[in-house]
Amino acid sequence: MTRPFISFLTDFGADSAAAICRGVMISIVPDAQIVDISHNVRKYQIRDGAFLLWCSMPWMPQGVHVAVVDPGVGTARKGIGIRTGRGDVLIGPDNGLLMPAADRLGGVVEVRELSNPELMLATTTSTFHGRDIFAPMGAHIAAGRAFEEVGPVVPSGATVPLAFPAPVARDGGLDLSIVYIDSFGNLRLSGDPADLAAAVGELGAGRPMVLRFAPLDGSAEIVEATTWERTFGTKALGASLLYEDSFARLAYADNQGNVAGRLGLSVDRAVRIEPA
Amino acid sequence: MTRPFISFLTDFGADSAAAICRGVMISIVPDAQIVDISHNVRKYQIRDGAFLLWCSMPWMPQGVHVAVVDPGVGTARKGIGIRTGRGDVLIGPDNGLLMPAADRLGGVVEVRELSNPELMLATTTSTFHGRDIFAPMGAHIAAGRAFEEVGPVVPSGATVPLAFPAPVARDGGLDLSIVYIDSFGNLRLSGDPADLAAAVGELGAGRPMVLRFAPLDGSAEIVEATTWERTFGTKALGASLLYEDSFARLAYADNQGNVAGRLGLSVDRAVRIEPA
Amino acid sequence: MTRPFISFLTDFGADSAAAICRGVMISIVPDAQIVDISHNVRKYQIRDGAFLLWCSMPWMPQGVHVAVVDPGVGTARKGIGIRTGRGDVLIGPDNGLLMPAADRLGGVVEVRELSNPELMLATTTSTFHGRDIFAPMGAHIAAGRAFEEVGPVVPSGATVPLAFPAPVARDGGLDLSIVYIDSFGNLRLSGDPADLAAAVGELGAGRPMVLRFAPLDGSAEIVEATTWERTFGTKALGASLLYEDSFARLAYADNQGNVAGRLGLSVDRAVRIEPA
Repeated sequence: MTRPFISFLTDFGADSAAAICRGVMISIVPDAQIVDISHNVRKYQIRDGAFLLWCSMPWMPQGVHVAVVDPGVGTARKGIGIRTGRGDVLIGPDNGLLMPAADRLGGVVEVRELSNPELMLATTTSTFHGRDIFAPMGAHIAAGRAFEEVGPVVPSGATVPLAFPAPVARDGGLDLSIVYIDSFGNLRLSGDPADLAAAVGELGAGRPMVLRFAPLDGSAEIVEATTWERTFGTKALGASLLYEDSFARLAYADNQGNVAGRLGLSVDRAVRIEPA
Repeated sequence: MTRPFISFLTDFGADSAAAICRGVMISIVPDAQIVDISHNVRKYQIRDGAFLLWCSMPWMPQGVHVAVVDPGVGTARKGIGIRTGRGDVLIGPDNGLLMPAADRLGGVVEVRELSNPELMLATTTSTFHGRDIFAPMGAHIAAGRAFEEVGPVVPSGATVPLAFPAPVARDGGLDLSIVYIDSFGNLRLSGDPADLAAAVGELGAGRPMVLRFAPLDGSAEIVEATTWERTFGTKALGASLLYEDSFARLAYADNQGNVAGRLGLSVDRAVRIEPA
Repeated sequence: MTRPFISFLTDFGADSAAAICRGVMISIVPDAQIVDISHNVRKYQIRDGAFLLWCSMPWMPQGVHVAVVDPGVGTARKGIGIRTGRGDVLIGPDNGLLMPAADRLGGVVEVRELSNPELMLATTTSTFHGRDIFAPMGAHIAAGRAFEEVGPVVPSGATVPLAFPAPVARDGGLDLSIVYIDSFGNLRLSGDPADLAAAVGELGAGRPMVLRFAPLDGSAEIVEATTWERTFGTKALGASLLYEDSFARLAYADNQGNVAGRLGLSVDRAVRIEPA
């Protein structure tokens, strides 16, 4: 018999807030195996949280996944639970945060509103639903309560969607944007190698490419000459490369450097990739 | 049968020191469920650590709570264990760190000095009591050793106290100070809504209030016009609010902003709240 | 029966990469007790990672230790497993990262190349061997697979070595360097008290000493007058001390300060200790 599994992601940072939620979970399901996906999501950045969940889900055991990036806490936004095709349950606010993760887990089977007070703490505040609602709801499901008990069904299409930007092939190049910047400073882009190959032709190791980062706030366009590569080690120390990252998406990095820092780039910056 | 529970808080940061203590604990009680409350307490700041423990305790399962913010390590300061009214045991230095947590757990039932070498590592250093004394003492208690074994009773009143500052109602307003700044930049204040209501009258949602942060180092007083609110989402993006936080205390925040950063505030700054 | 133990160290930072590896491990060995030694090793700094492993190993239960600081991922560098004298297994890249840890665990008994695809994920990328190779290899060993199954023996002497710098006694003083700077800003030096005593004579508490940090990039030598002490609390707040750290090595600190920050020092800076 395996232990109940819960993954947990928030933007709570290094204070005790995430630990308090963990304490709530363990009080309900003492034997839980809890994995902290990250508590360092940029504050209030729902899409950053959604991206990290999207990245992580395929490698997590089947179980319950609690996620809280929740700028709308205390407003009319709903709390939801999602049963997925793989059999997992996602728990969090209805603000789009959970939707890409659901796609990665076999898609949405059923959405329910978190409304059953029996599965919440006895006292709920209007500023910390992570502790008062999401953590106990997730823990009760992990402990074996039926998903149907969380609350009534939310009709299909009545939840807040979240989509990552789509790449656009145009004039022999590919228009994308920066979706996420990881802790190495690598740029995670809004497309995959098939998108790029469809726009520019076959991607052979060493093929010269040009990246054009759109002007921002009156600054000039940033133009980077680089090559398509299979891995970092094929480039000199500090040299850049365009590659397929370990999640099968396009990425741009400096070998052992920090390209986002070097170029002063941030999330959502538009970038165009062209053959050199 | 549930697993032995240990919570753990330090100012050890992101090095391996907290993990080393965890290794010591697991070597003694392999099945422990250990929750890291935080290892990012500001270095040497006993009161910050005491505040985070105070916040966390009500949501932790009954068990052992080990805390180490210990600027006096290696001096004559004692190590102590506290048995609380709820049945928990607190383990750490006798410098006040554990006292507010004890209050939250039903109060101090008995204090003992950590002096039994059988419950310490075989070799103890003068600079890392977290590893050599506090972690093994806590783990042995979690593993079932009697609390009485840690060492002799410390008489009531012989431990170092720690009190958070008390609010003062004066001339139709309330004088407080900033007790803690959380990772969102929200100001946690030294009073609760009842203190404020007693000073200024009933706190209705939307009631205009003024906060006056005392001059510091020759700077001018900072005056903030705000309103009393029930939750963040009632204010515009970036607008401030005074509210009851999720620990039933007074707090001041910018909705989806960082008010401590915006105003350049730090812990212990005096602040006065008045009706607008 | 105790739970399988895995320790885990990387330079992956606060993104979800370390959690993804944890998810892979738990999918293979659901009951594992996993301790994160650190995921905040300075990016690509193999020796920093090796130092933290070296510090931690004696306090970890016997088990599997997975470490990933891997600037050469995707190149010809091998992945290796090391069986140690204490009975542990170390898993990681063949770049020196694991060698000091092996020394602390009774020395290298056998090295094997990680080449058995049955113990890897079904799909392996060229940029994330932590997830695809090291985590599953470590988890399979923790779950009870024989060490011999990871791959063929690597001959003695065919792995990449890593040695910390050795101290040199010269002209009545000791030449060392800074090996690591911990999160308190304390300088961890490349020698132990016996080395220093051999060079300068007996180390009594309060003995005056001088530290000379070599000029760097045209800056002047930094000269620090201090004393040898047994613990921090013997010096005034902010005053410096030379001492034996809790790993039996030489270290230099400011009492409740941050000496590395105060003097602008970084790793590998040469330092000479002389009697005052």
